[in-house]
Amino acid sequence: MAELTLNVTTVRQKLTDFIRQQVERAGLSRAVLGLSGGIDSALACCLAAEALGAQNVLAVRLPYTTSAPDSLDDAQRVIDLTGVQSLTIPITPMVEPLFERFPDMTGVRRGNIMARTRMVILFDQSAAFHALVVGTGNKTEVLLGYSTIYGDSACAFNPLGDLYKTQVRQLSQALGLPASILAKAPSADLWQGQTDEGDLGFTYAEVDRLLFHLVEERRTPDDCLALGFAPGLVQTVINRVRRNRFKSQLPPVPQINTHPATEPLAFI
Amino acid sequence: MAELTLNVTTVRQKLTDFIRQQVERAGLSRAVLGLSGGIDSALACCLAAEALGAQNVLAVRLPYTTSAPDSLDDAQRVIDLTGVQSLTIPITPMVEPLFERFPDMTGVRRGNIMARTRMVILFDQSAAFHALVVGTGNKTEVLLGYSTIYGDSACAFNPLGDLYKTQVRQLSQALGLPASILAKAPSADLWQGQTDEGDLGFTYAEVDRLLFHLVEERRTPDDCLALGFAPGLVQTVINRVRRNRFKSQLPPVPQINTHPATEPLAFI
Repeated sequence: MAELTLNVTTVRQKLTDFIRQQVERAGLSRAVLGLSGGIDSALACCLAAEALGAQNVLAVRLPYTTSAPDSLDDAQRVIDLTGVQSLTIPITPMVEPLFERFPDMTGVRRGNIMARTRMVILFDQSAAFHALVVGTGNKTEVLLGYSTIYGDSACAFNPLGDLYKTQVRQLSQALGLPASILAKAPSADLWQGQTDEGDLGFTYAEVDRLLFHLVEERRTPDDCLALGFAPGLVQTVINRVRRNRFKSQLPPVPQINTHPATEPLAFI
Repeated sequence: MAELTLNVTTVRQKLTDFIRQQVERAGLSRAVLGLSGGIDSALACCLAAEALGAQNVLAVRLPYTTSAPDSLDDAQRVIDLTGVQSLTIPITPMVEPLFERFPDMTGVRRGNIMARTRMVILFDQSAAFHALVVGTGNKTEVLLGYSTIYGDSACAFNPLGDLYKTQVRQLSQALGLPASILAKAPSADLWQGQTDEGDLGFTYAEVDRLLFHLVEERRTPDDCLALGFAPGLVQTVINRVRRNRFKSQLPPVPQINTHPATEPLAFI
């Protein structure tokens, strides 16, 4: 889709400038991120290495016992390609006590515990490495709420947060990410055989086109039906966006005093 | 300080209405919260029980091996007083694998891991109990950044987020919270002997007065010096507020497309 096509050179420059600026603003020079073996974290890792220098980036592999071995291998390919520092910290011993205490929990609960435990480790590593945690969630995920709040969506800043999945792919291709990462079906790898498109019930290619019309072009759902999008897809996507909006907002606080704590202060 | 004095009846009503409204807006009827034995979570628990009915509130005690036994006892007093449902889930087996892997980590790193692991458990319990997670952080903590991002500050909504610590105390007294909770020195209880006022280097009484002038009255630091606040205190507080502001903001995202994912959408 032409509208989703990026000017790769401009965007690459913009994102690396942004990463450098965010890290420097915090008085630091380093970044840490979780490397899953998927395309989003691979792209974030490449951009961070380009922005800060490979030695200033720590990529952490955080496998669970059922994680696909391919995921670990693909993550290693990114480490080798970029030359960043790396660590592997299995989450299994941290999550098992909770899984054992509640043996009947659903796969979604298990997946959320795993995503949040990875966050715990990444933020701890950011303290150890004097670094900021780089987010790796793309705009499609953010809009659809296809992420765990306080889990994989937690970060200090997110360079990919305004790129649709289709655009992440385009940029990753241009940057020469490993072929195995570019080729495979996107998956959160929280359980065996999971794929994003299977979970969501539609492809990224179609949902990105629809989201582009709804979000960037400000078209109404009726406009989108007139453009030929399937009614079921339009309804499903609108419901997901509505239901998951809370994930990209701060928790509501009732006003009691005069000025909310989040309001800007002149002396800051 | 007169300006910090609440109309207890009005505020109590406002906060219970807010809790009910937030839970209903999510299509739910229940809430879950971590009960530490401290005054903030005790107050939040009382308000939630009043708003939703005691049977619709789940209080979770999340002790670590070094947590003060008094904390567990005080939490039990709140459970008994309010009649809410309760669970005790020790965090020790979940945090120990990380402590053992990095035996030299600082107390602050350990404390942050503990706070975030408690979040992992609370959000999982909210899924099991079909409930929202109630925040328990007060405005003094939020402004000073005296909390763990994605840890104790993580919640679905925060009824206490616009109450200064002094106001939390006033409301808790009026609601008849257990005397042992009202009397003891506030502490995050992340290590033995820790107290908030020891960590911060000043008392809540003095910092709340200063914050009231800076935040609610919009006075400048110079105004506050003229009012007689110690220069060291003013500087320390301003530095803390500035340094910790990121904790109450969404992670920055560089703009690539036309409309940020967080912008309101007409059809939502």
